[in-house]
Amino acid sequence: MASAASSLDALIDALRRLPGVGVKSAQRMAYHLMQHDRDGAMLLSRALGEAASHVRHCERCNTYTEAPVCSVCLDPQRDARLLCVVETPADQAALERTGSFRGLYFVLMGKLSPLDGVGLRDIGLPRLIERATDGVVEEVIVATNFTAEGEATAHVIGDALRPRGVRVTRLARGVPVGSELEYVDLGTIAHALMDRR
Amino acid sequence: MASAASSLDALIDALRRLPGVGVKSAQRMAYHLMQHDRDGAMLLSRALGEAASHVRHCERCNTYTEAPVCSVCLDPQRDARLLCVVETPADQAALERTGSFRGLYFVLMGKLSPLDGVGLRDIGLPRLIERATDGVVEEVIVATNFTAEGEATAHVIGDALRPRGVRVTRLARGVPVGSELEYVDLGTIAHALMDRR
Repeated sequence: MASAASSLDALIDALRRLPGVGVKSAQRMAYHLMQHDRDGAMLLSRALGEAASHVRHCERCNTYTEAPVCSVCLDPQRDARLLCVVETPADQAALERTGSFRGLYFVLMGKLSPLDGVGLRDIGLPRLIERATDGVVEEVIVATNFTAEGEATAHVIGDALRPRGVRVTRLARGVPVGSELEYVDLGTIAHALMDRR
Repeated sequence: MASAASSLDALIDALRRLPGVGVKSAQRMAYHLMQHDRDGAMLLSRALGEAASHVRHCERCNTYTEAPVCSVCLDPQRDARLLCVVETPADQAALERTGSFRGLYFVLMGKLSPLDGVGLRDIGLPRLIERATDGVVEEVIVATNFTAEGEATAHVIGDALRPRGVRVTRLARGVPVGSELEYVDLGTIAHALMDRR
């Protein structure tokens, strides 16, 4: 639109940098903020600036934090003998919400994906080996996703850590809580049968 | 996640102010920006700040602009005898992209919606009447959407302007270009039959 305010066009372009936001969504978001929520626009503007300049990676577990070492790693209540490896901070957040894990984490910030050029070094395998062989960690729980890439990543981590005397386990595969067998996929049922207890 | 950087949490909360963005999408957006596109985060931050503080409504047509009067209203090439009424700047943009309208616009910034408490004054009907009876405008083309609310809005605008001697027309309803009759809804076909030419 030749008539558009140029800063509105710039905003629409910038909103398209968000994942999953195309030109129509970006327009809708921009118009919504301008018409109904300018406070929200200012709030989001500040939050983006703050996060982009202050969020960094924890020196120990690699998750997002504002301090050199994150609060989980600093928590003396945590069991330092257990180290849970996850792909992303979102996965870590999901595990934390269960309230059933009291160990520490290592966040890969990705998964092995040769097709996308993501190799061992990109997912911080050398750092993970160093972290897992600090003499305190006894068990590494690999909680990467149950996708092809997540499984490959888990496999590589296991192969790297087991020869170094670290016990490596994997999250259990099985039927999700609350689901009916009839609607669960066959691979999951087969795994649940194999891993029955 | 108790361990989360607080500015990351603040960012996730702020992203949820965007329409259509829930907590999962907000997380995904925040993590994406932090991990892959900090430049994009800074860019979006600046764009939001700029737009929220500079974008305002055109004094003549009510669309978004940074100047007191928008560039369309200032364009001497435009035919001031034709005034097209649309619901939103996005609708105006769609009409502009067709390149087939050379008149001026009036943007309602909404539609009549009694259930949501949006009345005649909220959609700027008094301003539209003043604008349409300036002695220059000869025809008002009502291009509100063909929804229940858009039709009601069009009806009210027609009732308000016709007694004042303004010619009021409506966008043609009919079969969309490129569509097959078999798949067009019956109401549209009925209107296309009625308005045949």
